[in-house]
Amino acid sequence: MIKAGIIGASGYTGGELLRLLVNHPNVKIELATSRSLEGKSITSIHRHLEGFLDLIYENPNSENIRERCDVVFLAVPHGSAMRYVPELLDGATKVVDLSADYRLETSVFEKIYEITHRDPRTAVYGLVELHAEAAEEDLVANPGCFPTGAILAAAPLAAAELIDIAVFDSKTGISGAGISPTEVSHYPNLAENITAYKLTNHRHRAEILQELNRLDQKLLNINFTPHVIPSIRGIFTTAHFFTNELLTTDDLRTIYDGFYKDKPFIRFPSGVPSLTAVRGSNFCDIGFEVDKENNRVIVLSAIDNLVKGASGQAIQNMNIMFGLDETRGLWLPAAAP
Amino acid sequence: MIKAGIIGASGYTGGELLRLLVNHPNVKIELATSRSLEGKSITSIHRHLEGFLDLIYENPNSENIRERCDVVFLAVPHGSAMRYVPELLDGATKVVDLSADYRLETSVFEKIYEITHRDPRTAVYGLVELHAEAAEEDLVANPGCFPTGAILAAAPLAAAELIDIAVFDSKTGISGAGISPTEVSHYPNLAENITAYKLTNHRHRAEILQELNRLDQKLLNINFTPHVIPSIRGIFTTAHFFTNELLTTDDLRTIYDGFYKDKPFIRFPSGVPSLTAVRGSNFCDIGFEVDKENNRVIVLSAIDNLVKGASGQAIQNMNIMFGLDETRGLWLPAAAP
Amino acid sequence: MIKAGIIGASGYTGGELLRLLVNHPNVKIELATSRSLEGKSITSIHRHLEGFLDLIYENPNSENIRERCDVVFLAVPHGSAMRYVPELLDGATKVVDLSADYRLETSVFEKIYEITHRDPRTAVYGLVELHAEAAEEDLVANPGCFPTGAILAAAPLAAAELIDIAVFDSKTGISGAGISPTEVSHYPNLAENITAYKLTNHRHRAEILQELNRLDQKLLNINFTPHVIPSIRGIFTTAHFFTNELLTTDDLRTIYDGFYKDKPFIRFPSGVPSLTAVRGSNFCDIGFEVDKENNRVIVLSAIDNLVKGASGQAIQNMNIMFGLDETRGLWLPAAAP
Amino acid sequence: MIKAGIIGASGYTGGELLRLLVNHPNVKIELATSRSLEGKSITSIHRHLEGFLDLIYENPNSENIRERCDVVFLAVPHGSAMRYVPELLDGATKVVDLSADYRLETSVFEKIYEITHRDPRTAVYGLVELHAEAAEEDLVANPGCFPTGAILAAAPLAAAELIDIAVFDSKTGISGAGISPTEVSHYPNLAENITAYKLTNHRHRAEILQELNRLDQKLLNINFTPHVIPSIRGIFTTAHFFTNELLTTDDLRTIYDGFYKDKPFIRFPSGVPSLTAVRGSNFCDIGFEVDKENNRVIVLSAIDNLVKGASGQAIQNMNIMFGLDETRGLWLPAAAP
Repeated sequence: MIKAGIIGASGYTGGELLRLLVNHPNVKIELATSRSLEGKSITSIHRHLEGFLDLIYENPNSENIRERCDVVFLAVPHGSAMRYVPELLDGATKVVDLSADYRLETSVFEKIYEITHRDPRTAVYGLVELHAEAAEEDLVANPGCFPTGAILAAAPLAAAELIDIAVFDSKTGISGAGISPTEVSHYPNLAENITAYKLTNHRHRAEILQELNRLDQKLLNINFTPHVIPSIRGIFTTAHFFTNELLTTDDLRTIYDGFYKDKPFIRFPSGVPSLTAVRGSNFCDIGFEVDKENNRVIVLSAIDNLVKGASGQAIQNMNIMFGLDETRGLWLPAAAP
Repeated sequence: MIKAGIIGASGYTGGELLRLLVNHPNVKIELATSRSLEGKSITSIHRHLEGFLDLIYENPNSENIRERCDVVFLAVPHGSAMRYVPELLDGATKVVDLSADYRLETSVFEKIYEITHRDPRTAVYGLVELHAEAAEEDLVANPGCFPTGAILAAAPLAAAELIDIAVFDSKTGISGAGISPTEVSHYPNLAENITAYKLTNHRHRAEILQELNRLDQKLLNINFTPHVIPSIRGIFTTAHFFTNELLTTDDLRTIYDGFYKDKPFIRFPSGVPSLTAVRGSNFCDIGFEVDKENNRVIVLSAIDNLVKGASGQAIQNMNIMFGLDETRGLWLPAAAP
Repeated sequence: MIKAGIIGASGYTGGELLRLLVNHPNVKIELATSRSLEGKSITSIHRHLEGFLDLIYENPNSENIRERCDVVFLAVPHGSAMRYVPELLDGATKVVDLSADYRLETSVFEKIYEITHRDPRTAVYGLVELHAEAAEEDLVANPGCFPTGAILAAAPLAAAELIDIAVFDSKTGISGAGISPTEVSHYPNLAENITAYKLTNHRHRAEILQELNRLDQKLLNINFTPHVIPSIRGIFTTAHFFTNELLTTDDLRTIYDGFYKDKPFIRFPSGVPSLTAVRGSNFCDIGFEVDKENNRVIVLSAIDNLVKGASGQAIQNMNIMFGLDETRGLWLPAAAP
Repeated sequence: MIKAGIIGASGYTGGELLRLLVNHPNVKIELATSRSLEGKSITSIHRHLEGFLDLIYENPNSENIRERCDVVFLAVPHGSAMRYVPELLDGATKVVDLSADYRLETSVFEKIYEITHRDPRTAVYGLVELHAEAAEEDLVANPGCFPTGAILAAAPLAAAELIDIAVFDSKTGISGAGISPTEVSHYPNLAENITAYKLTNHRHRAEILQELNRLDQKLLNINFTPHVIPSIRGIFTTAHFFTNELLTTDDLRTIYDGFYKDKPFIRFPSGVPSLTAVRGSNFCDIGFEVDKENNRVIVLSAIDNLVKGASGQAIQNMNIMFGLDETRGLWLPAAAP
């Protein structure tokens, strides 16, 4: 059994790691940490896990964590992960970092997050469908939630160098904003409403740019505007691509089927993708349609932000880092409706 | 008192006309029609109007309607309005048509709606902020809900011939789909979800095109993709404009303030517009932000689809057709939260 | 014009007072106060009122308030109102207190709220349908939101001394919990859920007890359990009454129609009451059904917690205190759907 | 492997059986039927199961079903199951019937459902926590959704003969009403609202009565009023019990712990139960509080109506009928939030 530790297990991504790992056939949850909740039972916070877990929150030092765990998931805020990583990697322990600390080139990271990086190093960007090389690594930077949906929507067309302009108009459920109440998560503000925010400069844009540029260096006109909708989970991305040649639906089908061959978590449902069909699951459902008039291709992607957009993808990375099938412990359908 | 008739008063736009007219100081509701509900009390359907109205649904012929009414609102399906209009106009009665029948040039209408027009004639497109000439008319074509939000977001920039490409990514509440239950309006399908539909060819695109082309003949790259969000009312439009020159926020402020000077229902709230702030009201709230990197301007507009997007705007048209202040009976704040 | 002041105008009940008063034909809003927001414009908080109000938040002393206002609405927390009332009443100014400070007999208040009362005095409990004598008073204690729905559901049967046991199972929208984000109002906690709280000892039970005992001294078996549902506005009360004789539906109709004769805000809609039909309005919609088997009568009431359950009722009280028709400024239908 | 058939697999309970069975380690889904969808792929309806199932809807006769299946789940409307059961049982096939046809004594069934029973016979009422004898049976009547939550809340107190009056005020998500759109499931009618229906005479009351009377013959004053809340899944039951002696919280803890000893799907979370903590899972979470004043005990139960209230419980029954641990294939935590 792989002994797993979760650093920062008090929030939603920590809870989701626990939910998925309690039933993972190859994993034993060794420890879960929280500074503020040290000594409390995990199920006092994650009440839905009552009966599945008997752990209490700990607050051990890195050495202790490293000694006890084969893999550590970092579910801590941006800027904190870099404090753990060097010490955790000082041995045989592998690390999947769910924060932004290792996703971007250091210089870009420092500019975007306005933090001096304590531990500059290269890590694989763990979008498994694009970066199978994560299998060889000890440290994987788990992608952001918005970039996961956006990049998966765009990658096949970007790799074919077909995109001139990309406009990602994304809609997320509120759980991505975390377990702590805020003005945005206040029910009277969110229900029956939709909120656009960081209209032009959301930090996740840098990840989208980095990954799409790896596929097509000339693709620079990349635009990203996020919204919050009245939904707990899910990210729905409407990607408007202006292409440099007129494509047909058949072209698209060939391009996407080819690119995502043998990728078990990418599906092409009939009709338009739906958050309902992916809720609680690790799938990314993709659909598309051609607008002949303006050389526009619309690609739609639907993911669960806490699963494929965070904790599920982290476990998918762990699976391949330990030589397991990538679907292990993750082959769960959505509980629709 | 202006005697008003509502043809097709069983649905949401009919109900909203009634809600707003019961308190309009210059209007007496003379009749409300429904074929299927003839003889039933209006409040048996629109239960929130109990105490405000004592009418029963009628099914009179056009002559009778014309004789009894100074103004008639047509809240009937597309293709039906054209059966009423010629007869209703055969006298002094004025008509505000909430259907699509007279919004487009006849040839465009026939192509888009695949109906041969029985009564080709020119009508003013009653987006009051752009078409004050409705004041002189006996027939006004009330705009579609999506076009209202989209055109109001774009008009100042289009009039300045600044837009190269326009992408309207619109999000509507479900009430625009009507009072009859459908798969889309089925709670388990809509809640915690978002649905994109008619990704490239929604009929409302033709209205947006027509009106923006009146302002800028060269603006042809106009794209429109609608979504339904879990909300009863409201349309939130995220307009991504790629401009032919780099604009500043100050430029935008000057352009929008100037264009909408003395337009009481256009507001520029601090921060991002919100459906909550316009719910139940006739306002269109507009916000914008410049994305310097790609010559992109994001303009956001928020309206209530049943008010500014339908019945409120119809009454705004009626007001100016009868020489009243356009705010008469409509000067109601949203009931936020 | 009646010059009105609102003390504590930063929250939802303050905002709702402003929304209703801006269109009240006999009222001029003279001032609105907030300590923390002093100097800011009111519409920076209540953005839906943009265009209706040009005031800034003030923080004047009681003397200044008293001199400038004919009526003052206190929308402050429990325990704070009693600091204002004596000074405000020291002249011709009338006061409607939306807090709990004057609703209960002093000894009961002190026990329930665990506060020593600084200003013990008798005030009318301003449930207008039961206490027309508010018209003669300078101070009215505006009822709590739950008690308004519960008492109006029970009063006719209590007055007829027909109830043995009363179980009020109430369901409220979240706006009653205020404008500040909390764990309960956090969207992921509230959406797709229902929360029961203060199962047996909610403070509002004392108001229900007091008022029903005024109608029937022997009615002591009164039980109240509140819930929060995923709704912004509204209180739906399911009242299960075990009666001391078997009643028929006709009996009920006679009893309720008689009791609420000439009460414009009480309606008996066909079918089951609905929050939709009262949202944003001052109505209390009531329905009932007899369960012959167990001498049970079910009475359902629906109100908007911010209107009839707070600010609307406060204005209804003001109206009668100033000799106006009680519907003045409040005769607004719900914006359904 | 147990070969399983699902008769009536086009709706929500059929879909939920499929979702849970695709990952059940001892089950192979042999067939799924639908008359209207014969020949279509199952994932064309249940799109979330894409990748898990490769079956098409069939419409075989009972003999064929019996020959191919070790167990058959009947997810058909009331009145239809009785047409299948006699033929399906004519061999070694076991049947779990999710309809109401075999839940009640025949005479009661005929009175409540107003249908003459074609196949009167005795079946175990498959509320596993109360009826372990299902293990010995070939036919099990799977309980209704409301009765599951209500009976589990009441059973320990009923078995101790402590209840004088029981008032079940239940709140359900809308998925219990099925996959077909209706006026009740129409988003504008359900969102921001709560609907009470069948206030005194819902058919499920008979099941509650039957099962509680088995535990306490003298308990006749049983009242049940259901509501629909804006939620897709879940049933929250607020049970108000007036008891014949004053109980303490410790008494309750002893009674409930004892009664549900070794019942893995019954949990007693700290705090009030929440639909979120059971969503998608087979748990019934129970909480309680004593109201000393009126000898009232409030018991709250939370279940997922489609899992413990239908398909999960059906599989739990299947598990014990085949000698498997009752948790097999069902030991899944809720995907909270």
